[in-house]
Amino acid sequence: MTIPLFRATVLVRPKAGILDPQGAAVESALEHLGFSVSGARVGKVVDLEVQGDDEAAARAQVEKMCEQLLANPLMESYEVEIVG
Amino acid sequence: MTIPLFRATVLVRPKAGILDPQGAAVESALEHLGFSVSGARVGKVVDLEVQGDDEAAARAQVEKMCEQLLANPLMESYEVEIVG
Repeated sequence: MTIPLFRATVLVRPKAGILDPQGAAVESALEHLGFSVSGARVGKVVDLEVQGDDEAAARAQVEKMCEQLLANPLMESYEVEIVG
Repeated sequence: MTIPLFRATVLVRPKAGILDPQGAAVESALEHLGFSVSGARVGKVVDLEVQGDDEAAARAQVEKMCEQLLANPLMESYEVEIVG
């Protein structure tokens, strides 16, 4: 019996209050191009496939990946979406 | 009269077939930690606030930002979500 495969999307963002130089650079560049923009923040999106008996097991695996590698819990928050 | 402000989330991902060394590194690191993972791809998430008369106008602005700055149309695809 094969273990089902789930596609997951993880969003990793700098926490509120944490300096985000990349976001500041993006905002400044957009303003120079003439856009009215504010509050730009840049994070990561990670798409991957993970094995799991069901959706809950797959989500638990991905949350463990976030805590161990994908996100820095001091500075970043993460959001896991299992897309199927 | 003030112009309404919309929060937008932009996902920028490497297109299929484009080499993604960061994704490969993440996948390899996760495997070394013992996870059963495949197809890892890493992109960017950009959150920002933009002015617009309505949601369609805000979305059009953000799509213009993607074409001009946020994404490299040769190598990356983008997805715009107006969150309110």
